[in-house]
Amino acid sequence: MNAMRESDADAAQVARDEAWFAARASRGVQGLKAYDPGHDLVAFRRTFSESQLVELGSNENPYGPSPDARAAILDQLHSLHRYPDPLGADLKRALAAKHGVEAKQILLGNGSHELLMQLAQAFAGADDDVVFSRYGFAVFALATQAAGATMRIVPALPDDHPTMPLGHDLDAMAAAITDRTKLVYLANPNNPTGTWFGRDAFAAFMAKVPAHVIVVMDEAYAELADAQADAASALPLLSSHSNLALTRTFSKAYGLAGLRVGYLIGAPGLVAVMERLRESFNVNGPALAACEAALGDTAHLQWARERNAEQRVALAEAFERRGLRVAPSQTNFVLVQFGPQTAHIEAELTRRGVVLRPMGGYGLPDYLRVTVGTVDENRRLLAAIDDVLGQVRA
Amino acid sequence: MNAMRESDADAAQVARDEAWFAARASRGVQGLKAYDPGHDLVAFRRTFSESQLVELGSNENPYGPSPDARAAILDQLHSLHRYPDPLGADLKRALAAKHGVEAKQILLGNGSHELLMQLAQAFAGADDDVVFSRYGFAVFALATQAAGATMRIVPALPDDHPTMPLGHDLDAMAAAITDRTKLVYLANPNNPTGTWFGRDAFAAFMAKVPAHVIVVMDEAYAELADAQADAASALPLLSSHSNLALTRTFSKAYGLAGLRVGYLIGAPGLVAVMERLRESFNVNGPALAACEAALGDTAHLQWARERNAEQRVALAEAFERRGLRVAPSQTNFVLVQFGPQTAHIEAELTRRGVVLRPMGGYGLPDYLRVTVGTVDENRRLLAAIDDVLGQVRA
Repeated sequence: MNAMRESDADAAQVARDEAWFAARASRGVQGLKAYDPGHDLVAFRRTFSESQLVELGSNENPYGPSPDARAAILDQLHSLHRYPDPLGADLKRALAAKHGVEAKQILLGNGSHELLMQLAQAFAGADDDVVFSRYGFAVFALATQAAGATMRIVPALPDDHPTMPLGHDLDAMAAAITDRTKLVYLANPNNPTGTWFGRDAFAAFMAKVPAHVIVVMDEAYAELADAQADAASALPLLSSHSNLALTRTFSKAYGLAGLRVGYLIGAPGLVAVMERLRESFNVNGPALAACEAALGDTAHLQWARERNAEQRVALAEAFERRGLRVAPSQTNFVLVQFGPQTAHIEAELTRRGVVLRPMGGYGLPDYLRVTVGTVDENRRLLAAIDDVLGQVRA
Repeated sequence: MNAMRESDADAAQVARDEAWFAARASRGVQGLKAYDPGHDLVAFRRTFSESQLVELGSNENPYGPSPDARAAILDQLHSLHRYPDPLGADLKRALAAKHGVEAKQILLGNGSHELLMQLAQAFAGADDDVVFSRYGFAVFALATQAAGATMRIVPALPDDHPTMPLGHDLDAMAAAITDRTKLVYLANPNNPTGTWFGRDAFAAFMAKVPAHVIVVMDEAYAELADAQADAASALPLLSSHSNLALTRTFSKAYGLAGLRVGYLIGAPGLVAVMERLRESFNVNGPALAACEAALGDTAHLQWARERNAEQRVALAEAFERRGLRVAPSQTNFVLVQFGPQTAHIEAELTRRGVVLRPMGGYGLPDYLRVTVGTVDENRRLLAAIDDVLGQVRA
């Protein structure tokens, strides 16, 4: 048997083993597929030099975190052997003060990913369904499937919608709620579409949601929305709706994706139930310290937000000048329609060290999601795009 | 209404809210209690100066991690805005090489706590039961309850057992397995007892376990066991038992509890199924780098292990000289029987800035678990104990 065949036989054996274990797993896990991490970015970083590589696939903040966050990590280097504070009390207090809520309304997560997963784990089971929008954040589907609940995927606004193509259709979402619905997930602004809805529209939606349904609003990109846009946080609605919970993250505007911190803001009773499921040391020590420090540096946040807003406008205009449709965005990325040649274009960009996010997994194979980079990154991105489009259109 | 009554009324309202949400939660979450983190260590650190405080409650490694781990974190400070490698490929390769297994046999967790929780989430449901030993690691019960499965808690060896008081009774555990058993959790050496069992005894146990039952062996303290003791890792049994999985951690011997990294070693098929449930970025970026670096510094590990073994013997002898019974241990802690006055003794120690771990939650109210500290920490611990025992016995 040659090496190739051995490797084939080996893969077949692993697949048989996986099927054996999957047959013993919960219904939810039986139907789940492992997350597809897309490009192997670590390998990319070894293939391309830093000046060649343009990483605009993961909606990271190219300006990085507040220097105070880095300094806080340095302070932690002498206590890495200590478990982190299982209460996360200092960070909760800082978040409560920032948002004008009580500390007992805050739940900390190993990224908001963990919180979104555990909300379904806690509240949705085999007899329940979970409502979310087509093109809603990918974790909504994973969380629902892992819990073994039924996905009720609501059609999005059409791709030729005049103001919010592919956005959440709140009327249709409210209408999709049944007696079996335990949970509704929304995102505002939404990833991967960049679309949003206003507070009045959301308040009207909440008025239609029965009190027994828990509504989870992911606001991962909220800090990046322009103040004058109507993409306002649902925070003021919390006091009148105890069935509403918000999730936020330090991975986007705060530039701390590497540390894995998200948080939930909700009713103290909801937080108390979720605390039962939370692993005691789910947020690591350097992260607790760095996030608390980052919260204090509002000037850095404001600076990064302004740079991002400027570059988002410039990048969207640049794509439109090239005849490419760009969905409206209040985030640090734009969803761009590259058309039927998208897969080829993406492969050509990848060959040039430019990493964007393919959207086939979302059912949008004609689109690429493009993180808004720095002036320099966007310039290099556009140069590569011009090069590739020149070939494709020739 | 005065402030006290307002606060009472508020607490009652939160309790009512919690009951409302709990009634909507899964059966497992309904029966769960939030983890009790014990003493508020952050508050302690603000009350006592560093020279007053003796923190021996959490089985942390007082020698800290390899300096290479700290250096690796410094290297990460420029890329905190990047998501960690979702594959954890470099760390998996290093772990595979260290243990003589394949990278596809390694699963990374946000601490082994996360892995233990997700194993029950994946493989144990409402109709299943999970077997573990009384005085087994606390997360075994939490994981089983969170999954809504039935706990089959097997009586431990008696507390007057000649060699292994309170240890796992492997014969009784094998006999407790039924057709409904999906999972067995064991720990070797075990926390909080410090007890262990040998490889031959474990091999005999595995021979009795039906192939449809998944056996999870937590080896969080394995690196701290003496080579000449019979507390050998079950690693060599993996190749003949695909239903066996081991969990390890960087929180103990490697001195990196603050970073939250554990890992599982098991059959590739089991790992593939668990990967479906794993959150894509569950291990943070600084942690991936620091753990890989720590693995390379075997001299530091060996040094910390030897210091710990020396001090464990000295500390156990010191307790015995004071007429206190000490359970045998192959870990970095000893379980000490303080008798009916334990709660008072613990309170008096706490007042003096000495933090040990009360065992009431484990059903062992006459015991305290004492982490083996440095020479200096142990000296200060024993001085405080002499002071308190002098009062108690006077």
